[in-house]
Amino acid sequence: MILELLVIGNEVLIGKTQDTNSSWMAKRITKYGHKIRRITTIGDDLNEIASAIQEILNRNPDMIISTGGLGPTFDDMTNEGIAQGLDRELVLDEHAYNSIKKAYKNAYEQGILKLEGMTPERKKMAYMPKGSTPLPNTKGTAPGVKLEENNIDIYILPGVPAEMKKMFRTVIKPILKEKKGKFYEDGFIFSGIGESQIAKYTSKLEDKHPDLWIKTHPRVGLSVEVEISITCFDKPTCEKQIEEVLTKLKEIVKELGGTIKEKSIVK
Amino acid sequence: MILELLVIGNEVLIGKTQDTNSSWMAKRITKYGHKIRRITTIGDDLNEIASAIQEILNRNPDMIISTGGLGPTFDDMTNEGIAQGLDRELVLDEHAYNSIKKAYKNAYEQGILKLEGMTPERKKMAYMPKGSTPLPNTKGTAPGVKLEENNIDIYILPGVPAEMKKMFRTVIKPILKEKKGKFYEDGFIFSGIGESQIAKYTSKLEDKHPDLWIKTHPRVGLSVEVEISITCFDKPTCEKQIEEVLTKLKEIVKELGGTIKEKSIVK
Repeated sequence: MILELLVIGNEVLIGKTQDTNSSWMAKRITKYGHKIRRITTIGDDLNEIASAIQEILNRNPDMIISTGGLGPTFDDMTNEGIAQGLDRELVLDEHAYNSIKKAYKNAYEQGILKLEGMTPERKKMAYMPKGSTPLPNTKGTAPGVKLEENNIDIYILPGVPAEMKKMFRTVIKPILKEKKGKFYEDGFIFSGIGESQIAKYTSKLEDKHPDLWIKTHPRVGLSVEVEISITCFDKPTCEKQIEEVLTKLKEIVKELGGTIKEKSIVK
Repeated sequence: MILELLVIGNEVLIGKTQDTNSSWMAKRITKYGHKIRRITTIGDDLNEIASAIQEILNRNPDMIISTGGLGPTFDDMTNEGIAQGLDRELVLDEHAYNSIKKAYKNAYEQGILKLEGMTPERKKMAYMPKGSTPLPNTKGTAPGVKLEENNIDIYILPGVPAEMKKMFRTVIKPILKEKKGKFYEDGFIFSGIGESQIAKYTSKLEDKHPDLWIKTHPRVGLSVEVEISITCFDKPTCEKQIEEVLTKLKEIVKELGGTIKEKSIVK
């Protein structure tokens, strides 16, 4: 599957909060053999949200996951922005309303909050684009949202990492697993010759193995890490391909006068 | 100024590398009173780079900063992608060529690399969209690039954080400072009442002070942080506005039965 992520939050754009949600999700999406094509990060702004979701839909991914902007405050406007972008009404979801009400009642009874009832701000979290299914938030109060547009699945998750992770694991991971390929990688670290010197060889090897992705990264102490990865469905074939290229590249590094330092840190 | 960032790198999209460059730049851009409207993160893909830069230009920001994809390997294709997006030729910059050659000569003479000359992969880093000015990279080999399109300044920086930071400080910071407003913020932490209970008050205060940005964040131990910020040009006026709203909000929190816990961590 091809996915796009939409990160919504002023705090990310002003550098107050480091968005770690995308990277966390990216690791898992990659692990199950799917591909993130683009991550779009925008502020809490109705028109920005509406136009960003339209642009993403026009690129026709299989799945869109947004994070952030589901809370009770006036600047949380993800549901409204997405409703606007999809030209759908924003409607009160009874199920979401009841679960929010219950969460606040529990917090009141446990003495955590001093106000029990539903304020307009709390009620706001139960409004979703028409046709949505609310996703339970067992780590917080704002429900997530699932909806579909032009056969594209859209998941709207909270921005609070603990809430996002729980919802991702419960709702999205099973789908990724069901439709999975697998991601394999291996590599090594060398020194004594530069990244640029083996570039033409990695390029040729990629031509020969079009499914493989061969990447080099500069590392501390002027060494270079080589990383070879593939997403595929048959483990022995994948591992054999990686092994073949790994062996070949190590030979090339040695021939050029470089030193193989150690196995790389990639798993 | 309104800025957009373009992050280029497969390693970010697969979750191997956490992009910390954007957040680092965002802090500084915000500090000097400018605004990032959007961050677009894409892979090392020619068509993606070309279309992303076109889309950003169509949104007409004052400045675009890209990071990543300037190295010697085949998958570093930022200059080529941007040239394609701007419909410009990719041309060899003599100045960049000489500085790259010199950097490799130095590395050879210091015994860091065993190959002195210019390989095609090394030469590749000197190719830039026609009309570009190369930016010296004193922490690495790949030069940065400055160019202009429709009165929009485009800065193409390396993705290696040390190289990016040095270039940002040398080239971009002076421009941000010259055109600066200032960013002020203050806040406090309270507990005992929920974020949702003060939402309607923060909303009203924002209506009254349209330049201020009032934000609440849930914090550990079920407490809530209030953060009030403004970008403006006259320090006493800015601070007075923040102070007024701060005092008002503390009163509201107390009236609702909440407890002011401490000064917030925002500076």
